[in-house]
Amino acid sequence: MSGSPHPARATSADVARLAGVSRATVSFVLNDTEPGRVSDATRAKVRAAAEQLGYVGHAAARALRAGRSNLVLMPATQAAIGRLVSDWLDDLQQALHEHGYTLVLHGGRGADPVEVARVWAEMRPAAVLAPGPGLSPAAVELLHTAGVRAVIATGGEPVPGAHTVIFRQDELGRLAAAHLIERGRRRLAVLMPRERGLDVFAEERLAGVRAAAQGRDVEVTPVPLGYDWDEALALARSWPGLDGVFGYNDEYALLLIRALQEVGRAVPGEVSVAGADDLLLARIAQPALTSVRIELGAATELAALVHRMIEEPAEPGVVDTIRMHLIIRDST
Amino acid sequence: MSGSPHPARATSADVARLAGVSRATVSFVLNDTEPGRVSDATRAKVRAAAEQLGYVGHAAARALRAGRSNLVLMPATQAAIGRLVSDWLDDLQQALHEHGYTLVLHGGRGADPVEVARVWAEMRPAAVLAPGPGLSPAAVELLHTAGVRAVIATGGEPVPGAHTVIFRQDELGRLAAAHLIERGRRRLAVLMPRERGLDVFAEERLAGVRAAAQGRDVEVTPVPLGYDWDEALALARSWPGLDGVFGYNDEYALLLIRALQEVGRAVPGEVSVAGADDLLLARIAQPALTSVRIELGAATELAALVHRMIEEPAEPGVVDTIRMHLIIRDST
Repeated sequence: MSGSPHPARATSADVARLAGVSRATVSFVLNDTEPGRVSDATRAKVRAAAEQLGYVGHAAARALRAGRSNLVLMPATQAAIGRLVSDWLDDLQQALHEHGYTLVLHGGRGADPVEVARVWAEMRPAAVLAPGPGLSPAAVELLHTAGVRAVIATGGEPVPGAHTVIFRQDELGRLAAAHLIERGRRRLAVLMPRERGLDVFAEERLAGVRAAAQGRDVEVTPVPLGYDWDEALALARSWPGLDGVFGYNDEYALLLIRALQEVGRAVPGEVSVAGADDLLLARIAQPALTSVRIELGAATELAALVHRMIEEPAEPGVVDTIRMHLIIRDST
Repeated sequence: MSGSPHPARATSADVARLAGVSRATVSFVLNDTEPGRVSDATRAKVRAAAEQLGYVGHAAARALRAGRSNLVLMPATQAAIGRLVSDWLDDLQQALHEHGYTLVLHGGRGADPVEVARVWAEMRPAAVLAPGPGLSPAAVELLHTAGVRAVIATGGEPVPGAHTVIFRQDELGRLAAAHLIERGRRRLAVLMPRERGLDVFAEERLAGVRAAAQGRDVEVTPVPLGYDWDEALALARSWPGLDGVFGYNDEYALLLIRALQEVGRAVPGEVSVAGADDLLLARIAQPALTSVRIELGAATELAALVHRMIEEPAEPGVVDTIRMHLIIRDST
């Protein structure tokens, strides 16, 4: 340990001095440019000097030279990630790493998509993987103008200017509601989480439930719920006589089921409840939870796609579609 | 939308040309340096030109000028984050944002702490918030030498050279095991998750269980378990006669309880099970799960601490201690 908390930082000039070479030579060696130009002996000398001084290259400097970094930026709040996505994200990180990229997650959100995109653009990522609702055409244009080579959006419809992975949130609600209606349920609740970052998804899922109910004698009521036991209990106690519930996802659905059981309401006897994500929790719940399974697809395929787009820019379009299907269990 | 997928990027020279000023003036205005030097009218002209051309500043360039970025880097695999930490991370992101920092999460892991630290250092973060097991004294030294101003580690013991938030993983195991022993349990299982990134924590928790058992007539057996229903069922069916379980965390504990119930073993009658994290799931489980609650502390306080350390480097030491306590419920 050095005595001072922040020892002076070694520069490439220090490395050049110790190795007895020019700064240009240090740069050639440490950045692996102009490989034919420097002898193996000199290379070894430069590397040893860099090692001895604890010299660390500068990703920002490389990004300036290259016009971009090897960062793949994914704006996402942790609360919106959930268990379904978290394991998959680790796979994606690993797969991107194998292509030479670094995945960073960034929680920044804001009201104006262009302002938010400007913050992303300042990091000069090679690619941005963004949830659809946060991307406007102007935001996509700004990212491209700032040199981001691949902008991949996830959303219900193609985002103009971006590559889009179609992920229809409304389809989750539609599939669950169609099943509840088929089971004879006519007064449907849609749980609307109070937690940050989930509101946009919840509105889209609600729209899917409404679509399934349209033209039939079915009433649809959005019901706000925080992920909190006392709030769930209060809701169950004052239950407004609805007979079917789409729970937004498995976690909210299971919370409500437990609260309904606690106050003596039978599931599925009095109220049928369906979730989404098909977590392991859905399978082991009592009663086991009907849920919509979401097939996120192989992270390795997305990583390969990101790499291809960075290497060879292509015209925007739909690049993939996330499939989903209902798993019927005992709660409906 | 432009016709080409990647329109030419506007440079500060383009902005200078359109505004009819020098590049230095553009730099003064857009980076807010030398505020007295440029008239309001010129400022407005430069800003309008930048807006019109879609010019975006470059965080990397600013990082080079400043010697560091405003990034706060947190290396963490998503799988290791879990629900307890995810909401707290969103709070931390927000609190850091209010101090002018951007929190990015980075999943990079590797065998050699120094090589891993080099990858972090290349991003020139202002601060690194790292889990203790990944930080060696040499890695901390490398980060400081690369100009990272605040290195804050989380671990059971102070990390030499870094500021440390003490988080004793072994204490989780010790608290749970002491309670199980007090309940008369003598053959303790410790669930060891197979999932990536959890092994280091699991070993430390196991050590805590062993410490609680030491000198008493208590047997401790580590039991590997993936987060998978079939695997949990197989374990429950071939249950090796152990009478107390520390489940690593609530999710693994609840999975095992359901599997034990499925094969007709009574919890807590035959086997007592305790978890950790005290998730809402623990409270609503049947039987409700005994768990160790972890008080992560206010994210706003950690953000203020990070800011103070970036502004005024201080001698390394222990900066906080995460407290935990047992919540006894029906599963033990």
